[in-house]
Amino acid sequence: MTKVIIWNENIHEKENEEVKKIYPNGIHNCIKDFLLKDSSFKIETATLEQEDNGLNEETLNKCNVLIWWGHKAHSKVLDKTVDLVQKRVLEGMGLIVLHSGHHSKIFKRLMGTNCNLTWREFGEKERLWICNPAHPICHGLDPYIELEMEEMYGEPFQVPSPEETLFTSWFEGGETFRSGLLYKRGNGQIFYFRPGHEAYPTYHNTNIQKIIKNAINYVKPKNNNIWEDIHSPIPKSNRPKPIENIKKRGISIDHPTEK
Amino acid sequence: MTKVIIWNENIHEKENEEVKKIYPNGIHNCIKDFLLKDSSFKIETATLEQEDNGLNEETLNKCNVLIWWGHKAHSKVLDKTVDLVQKRVLEGMGLIVLHSGHHSKIFKRLMGTNCNLTWREFGEKERLWICNPAHPICHGLDPYIELEMEEMYGEPFQVPSPEETLFTSWFEGGETFRSGLLYKRGNGQIFYFRPGHEAYPTYHNTNIQKIIKNAINYVKPKNNNIWEDIHSPIPKSNRPKPIENIKKRGISIDHPTEK
Amino acid sequence: MTKVIIWNENIHEKENEEVKKIYPNGIHNCIKDFLLKDSSFKIETATLEQEDNGLNEETLNKCNVLIWWGHKAHSKVLDKTVDLVQKRVLEGMGLIVLHSGHHSKIFKRLMGTNCNLTWREFGEKERLWICNPAHPICHGLDPYIELEMEEMYGEPFQVPSPEETLFTSWFEGGETFRSGLLYKRGNGQIFYFRPGHEAYPTYHNTNIQKIIKNAINYVKPKNNNIWEDIHSPIPKSNRPKPIENIKKRGISIDHPTEK
Amino acid sequence: MTKVIIWNENIHEKENEEVKKIYPNGIHNCIKDFLLKDSSFKIETATLEQEDNGLNEETLNKCNVLIWWGHKAHSKVLDKTVDLVQKRVLEGMGLIVLHSGHHSKIFKRLMGTNCNLTWREFGEKERLWICNPAHPICHGLDPYIELEMEEMYGEPFQVPSPEETLFTSWFEGGETFRSGLLYKRGNGQIFYFRPGHEAYPTYHNTNIQKIIKNAINYVKPKNNNIWEDIHSPIPKSNRPKPIENIKKRGISIDHPTEK
Repeated sequence: MTKVIIWNENIHEKENEEVKKIYPNGIHNCIKDFLLKDSSFKIETATLEQEDNGLNEETLNKCNVLIWWGHKAHSKVLDKTVDLVQKRVLEGMGLIVLHSGHHSKIFKRLMGTNCNLTWREFGEKERLWICNPAHPICHGLDPYIELEMEEMYGEPFQVPSPEETLFTSWFEGGETFRSGLLYKRGNGQIFYFRPGHEAYPTYHNTNIQKIIKNAINYVKPKNNNIWEDIHSPIPKSNRPKPIENIKKRGISIDHPTEK
Repeated sequence: MTKVIIWNENIHEKENEEVKKIYPNGIHNCIKDFLLKDSSFKIETATLEQEDNGLNEETLNKCNVLIWWGHKAHSKVLDKTVDLVQKRVLEGMGLIVLHSGHHSKIFKRLMGTNCNLTWREFGEKERLWICNPAHPICHGLDPYIELEMEEMYGEPFQVPSPEETLFTSWFEGGETFRSGLLYKRGNGQIFYFRPGHEAYPTYHNTNIQKIIKNAINYVKPKNNNIWEDIHSPIPKSNRPKPIENIKKRGISIDHPTEK
Repeated sequence: MTKVIIWNENIHEKENEEVKKIYPNGIHNCIKDFLLKDSSFKIETATLEQEDNGLNEETLNKCNVLIWWGHKAHSKVLDKTVDLVQKRVLEGMGLIVLHSGHHSKIFKRLMGTNCNLTWREFGEKERLWICNPAHPICHGLDPYIELEMEEMYGEPFQVPSPEETLFTSWFEGGETFRSGLLYKRGNGQIFYFRPGHEAYPTYHNTNIQKIIKNAINYVKPKNNNIWEDIHSPIPKSNRPKPIENIKKRGISIDHPTEK
Repeated sequence: MTKVIIWNENIHEKENEEVKKIYPNGIHNCIKDFLLKDSSFKIETATLEQEDNGLNEETLNKCNVLIWWGHKAHSKVLDKTVDLVQKRVLEGMGLIVLHSGHHSKIFKRLMGTNCNLTWREFGEKERLWICNPAHPICHGLDPYIELEMEEMYGEPFQVPSPEETLFTSWFEGGETFRSGLLYKRGNGQIFYFRPGHEAYPTYHNTNIQKIIKNAINYVKPKNNNIWEDIHSPIPKSNRPKPIENIKKRGISIDHPTEK
């Protein structure tokens, strides 16, 4: 059983009539609905307006994969939420960052860059090409996926070089974008996946749904082997002894290094 | 002319008599002294206790390479200083992070991980082995460097996989450490270099001095080609026009994505 | 059921009396014996002296993970064997290269470098430190593993930067080595693991056995999604049509690009 | 002075009347002509039909950057030529592989994969987008480059994940391609650059010329620090002594590991 939390900002869906028609219960519930067809997933949702942004240590400790959708209120996400999510990613929780989540606090925190890009909202055609057809995230797909209407995201996308580029997008208006990127931070696998502008029915597309399902199975922790997050002097009880017979030299500075 | 700023916390050297004997003018001035022998460097220093931590937009904009030494007061570095340094690294400024700087705000910001490690202060012997003898940073060195007394840093070192591992350390007490790591964030080259505990005369060692000099020349920007830090919609005046004849489809959401 | 083939050169064990005592049935059968305790593995072995080096298209097509041990007769491995193994790695078969297999034709083929290193056969103590305690390959291990007697391998190890460094070795004689390296070529995960000199009982060590078991489970294909190995012009029947209404321009050169 | 050798297969230009019109003196001389405008380059050319493919140890030892264009006769390149070029790349010589050189023996040798891709020769429009505007190779360029007629290359491009992706291409017919990729093998920087089909005047385009010039300056060795290509036992004369007082244990196998 893979425990998934879908986090959504959930503002456009309440404020904008057109978005409401596409995602009447919010993007998070649209994603939840198609994931529920797979009985190996146990799904919860969380949104910005909930207490503690709907996330806390207890729920995150049980979570295998966190999906993140945010757009216009990134700055309203609490810093302590970002700290908790980062800690869990380092321990091995998978993270899927969707679309405008490229500018979320947590993604920028994990990347170390500003994650800037260019964009155009023009409802144009997007083709997502698969760079590695046999990657588990691409299982069951044709050589490309076509979306009739999407927001364009263009290069330069200011992120570190990824572990692997899985999708590159072609836009009708003439741009390209690296749309599916894999990263690892600590033991957490991170998948950034571009499509999903709130003004279009992207998450109703069965290929997009397939990719998100595949991605959950790919980024989830492979075992329950949590990183023992050590920052401590040696020796202590559970640490090895140094090679015998070395002699201490020089002075000592009393210095518990600050975290 | 390569413009270098050496930043130092400068606390141990003022508080501890033993450290004061080793670095009477502070670690920053010890580093400055050996760099000044190379006339291609223009050196400035900055310390924590100075106004704005001794760094501001003007000085950083002129800086090609920033060297960072900090240990017990990482949390006292201002967040606006960290923001400024990160911005300049993304634009292309080189950054050399020394020893306990692994836990500095700026290094953790750029790595996206907690950068934890294990350690032992026992004045033991360290051998730094060169993993790539022909790398410019290793120019002029023997197969390994030996330091008679150093603090031990041990694995696991919780950082992302580096672009290249240049040095691995052997410690008398039985540990190893990945001691020279190269990263790239935006256009900035980052070099983490392990040795340099304040209790030992490491920065007086000519091999260590050679590595720091080589590293400055390696991480400095290769040209003055500053990243145009775009996060803006397309088209705007200086951006390309989309391919002709595409028609807008769907709705628009008024949405300047939040930074 | 994970199908594993253990390939062994199998020369030292027949020629040298001391090695014969340690591995009376050959290194491959020693590895087979401890793997058989795990009922999820189906194990076969293959050796150099067999017809076609014991490997052919049929057996490799069914193989999920190939383990490779070779030392003094790398050049006797047939080029067609190397071609077949490379093809299967690109398709997704896992590959575990042990010890002196660093210089095998297949490892050099996949790395693109000469894979040189330095060594000393002196029966000295080796400590393997874990760089990422929560990686599935490191599951169930203490912070380090100690081997009383091993051949030393030292830096520089001339391989490309790995996807991840999992183990670094400390040797009694003063050297270090990057002893556990992960690579990806096509869809195949490759794990290089250093220990295993024929003169010492390394593969009888239960920690080493645990790592090899973990590695099989890590590098095995995640699904049966074989890369469709395309090198063909577009359009053809199963390929997408180009965007409508583009007009051919310029001349054509009759040119089936040579493989 | 940067010493550059431009290697060209030089067959299309002699066999095909249309290609001859575009490149009357061969692609190599077209590239030579625009490079000669920069007095910091010293240029030589070499072609397939020359003795030893026009390359030998002496000329390669003096070469800083080798440019490679080949298409329909990859298999006619001598294996000893490939060996020599690979050796020099590992030592630090820069290598620029153009267009259909993706399938050359030397590129496949260095990548470890089959380097397959898809293609269509239809004279369609290509837009090359810059993924990192401040990279030295992108110096002086607009956000994208447009070529009125080019052969299409499409994903999947079966190469290892690059150190950095500098260009992604948009094709009029609906495909994308990762068109500018950086790799490192040993100390050699490798730049793969997609455009340059023989049927179109791509190398007459001033932006393409600018990129090739920039790339030469980027991939050329940063110093004369040649990798000492060690594969030898320790100790030998120029190698360090082991830590004193360790005692030999176990047996020895007489084993000069085969190259």
